[in-house]
Amino acid sequence: MKFTHESMAQRVIFATGEAAASVVAEIQALQRSKVMLIASERKTELADPIEATLRSAGMQVVVRHEEVVMHVPVEVAERARVAAAAAQADIVVSIGGGSATGLGKAIVMDGSPVAGLPLIAVPTTYAGSEGTNVWGLTNEKTKTTGVDNRALPTSVVYDASLLTSLPSNMAVASGLNALAHSIDVMWGPRVDPIDRAFAGEGIRGLAAGLPLIAENPTSIEGIEQTLYGAYLSAVAFASAGSGMHHKICHVLGGMFNLPHAQTHAVVLPHVLAFNAQNDLEAEQRIAAAFGAVLGSGSATDGLRALRDKLGIWVDVPKALKDFGMPEDGVMKAVEPIKTAIPSDNPTPITNENLAALLRAAWEGNLP
Amino acid sequence: MKFTHESMAQRVIFATGEAAASVVAEIQALQRSKVMLIASERKTELADPIEATLRSAGMQVVVRHEEVVMHVPVEVAERARVAAAAAQADIVVSIGGGSATGLGKAIVMDGSPVAGLPLIAVPTTYAGSEGTNVWGLTNEKTKTTGVDNRALPTSVVYDASLLTSLPSNMAVASGLNALAHSIDVMWGPRVDPIDRAFAGEGIRGLAAGLPLIAENPTSIEGIEQTLYGAYLSAVAFASAGSGMHHKICHVLGGMFNLPHAQTHAVVLPHVLAFNAQNDLEAEQRIAAAFGAVLGSGSATDGLRALRDKLGIWVDVPKALKDFGMPEDGVMKAVEPIKTAIPSDNPTPITNENLAALLRAAWEGNLP
Repeated sequence: MKFTHESMAQRVIFATGEAAASVVAEIQALQRSKVMLIASERKTELADPIEATLRSAGMQVVVRHEEVVMHVPVEVAERARVAAAAAQADIVVSIGGGSATGLGKAIVMDGSPVAGLPLIAVPTTYAGSEGTNVWGLTNEKTKTTGVDNRALPTSVVYDASLLTSLPSNMAVASGLNALAHSIDVMWGPRVDPIDRAFAGEGIRGLAAGLPLIAENPTSIEGIEQTLYGAYLSAVAFASAGSGMHHKICHVLGGMFNLPHAQTHAVVLPHVLAFNAQNDLEAEQRIAAAFGAVLGSGSATDGLRALRDKLGIWVDVPKALKDFGMPEDGVMKAVEPIKTAIPSDNPTPITNENLAALLRAAWEGNLP
Repeated sequence: MKFTHESMAQRVIFATGEAAASVVAEIQALQRSKVMLIASERKTELADPIEATLRSAGMQVVVRHEEVVMHVPVEVAERARVAAAAAQADIVVSIGGGSATGLGKAIVMDGSPVAGLPLIAVPTTYAGSEGTNVWGLTNEKTKTTGVDNRALPTSVVYDASLLTSLPSNMAVASGLNALAHSIDVMWGPRVDPIDRAFAGEGIRGLAAGLPLIAENPTSIEGIEQTLYGAYLSAVAFASAGSGMHHKICHVLGGMFNLPHAQTHAVVLPHVLAFNAQNDLEAEQRIAAAFGAVLGSGSATDGLRALRDKLGIWVDVPKALKDFGMPEDGVMKAVEPIKTAIPSDNPTPITNENLAALLRAAWEGNLP
């Protein structure tokens, strides 16, 4: 047992139907009053009542910022930083998915003129960015990511009622992406037992929540459990780093321009089966997490049981060939993927076993 | 699902045999160099090599403080604070059990002339204080406790080789005390799912480690697992607060002057059986944690299996009557205990069921 684990300071509030009141309480606890409120136009209906509550609690909304763009282009971040500084905002509140949270992070991180402002994130997807100190900025077509503890939201307010309009298909895709975080944690390059415990709890929440929202995207219990699982998965993933699964998806996505969520959903069962056989402790943790909710057996059984349950209600992606990956892509991808996978992966990588895995994922032959 | 969970910033290092190097690395990372080193005379052998390593890394040990007293008397704390200020220490390192950590906290907490200094705790027991922001000070015979985030150690360095001289009986008693933390978390007044996940992982570590150190107090694997379990149990317990078990032990300890560790060891199986039947989720988490290590069935089975395993090597306390509690104490204790137990305890408390529990614990009739 040799590891260093860094826990980061963050308050997490679960309060369905009470986002506005919870945001007010957090701002008051932080003794701030001049709010920059980030919410894209599409989130206006969710943001308006929160803004109204802030105002009636005597706070000023000094900026209402609507320009939210995927992957946080630097010029968007720069405009938002300047607006925050000009209005002398003393706190930032982001309402939205990963892009809104990411913009909030860009505003409060090192290098910004308002670096160090507290950030309250109010998530409306299962992206999980709110649980990490990882930031990302895009310049032209190049995305730069880094870690900065200032970028970690001071508080996260989870209100399941804000996610009831997310359609089943999108919700499940976002939730399966979170599941890929927690499973890949097990063989992340910096993984420690605490990360594994968080990841196990994350899998448990996702296994409980996802079938509920697949069947009924307005299920409050389903959304709560999925948010909870996605949060823990993100916290653990940021600590452990990208393992084999994310390396595969990253390379394939880049080489063949594959859709993000679908690639993750297809590849995950293959990596799980590939690695769990040689990592008894991870196998048992994952099996126990799925099993506690789904009554399944092994880790692989658990993921299969979850996919089967989801498949009753939504399409669960199964084969990379369905998403535009050419057949000869399998052999082309072997070398770059092999190079990217951490050297201490539980199952040693060979050209043969990696090609077999990729071929199975391409064909859609589930393990 | 409605809760607020506060994660606190702390770095935890597990590095057997590397306490000195790890302490140096933490001090360097914090850019400090003038160390106040706390270690009682009994810990001289453990502290000397660490002091030597600090000095050879170019650091000054500006105070070597040996006055470490149980429950941290205010006058002891005051002398230590004055010494830290006079020597212009810029970091505090405590080596020892709960009393040494407690003194370190007293030095860096609010109200001290050197409040806010970073504190590195190097634990030599399973007390767990190093994982919490809870401080305690004793004035005459009155102990005051409170919470203060400044009291939370900045870093904790766990080196199992520092605990190999702890005798089996003491190590097991200290570990069972940690187990009482994690089990009582499940019905603590502020418990949330994250606390429960931490507590489950804590139980798992303790169930794995304690039998190993009962058999062989120098087992590094046993000490590592027990330290890990005790740490998570303490983190969760500080977040969730005292539940039924600790209320019972606190009242009994005060009324009949019972020994701390033994009282906890005796009472725990009774509270577990009493509450688990009405808290299915807690029952399952505890059962899974014990079961993953001991192959046991229910939560109560798991604790019994652990006690049986420990009983091969050490005396596991079984009856309060063996520790000086009078028979008529059972009825005397019912009312004050009933008042102290949180009102949302899973099994509602009546005079009858509480008296039956206490009588069984007094007699030594395990559930």
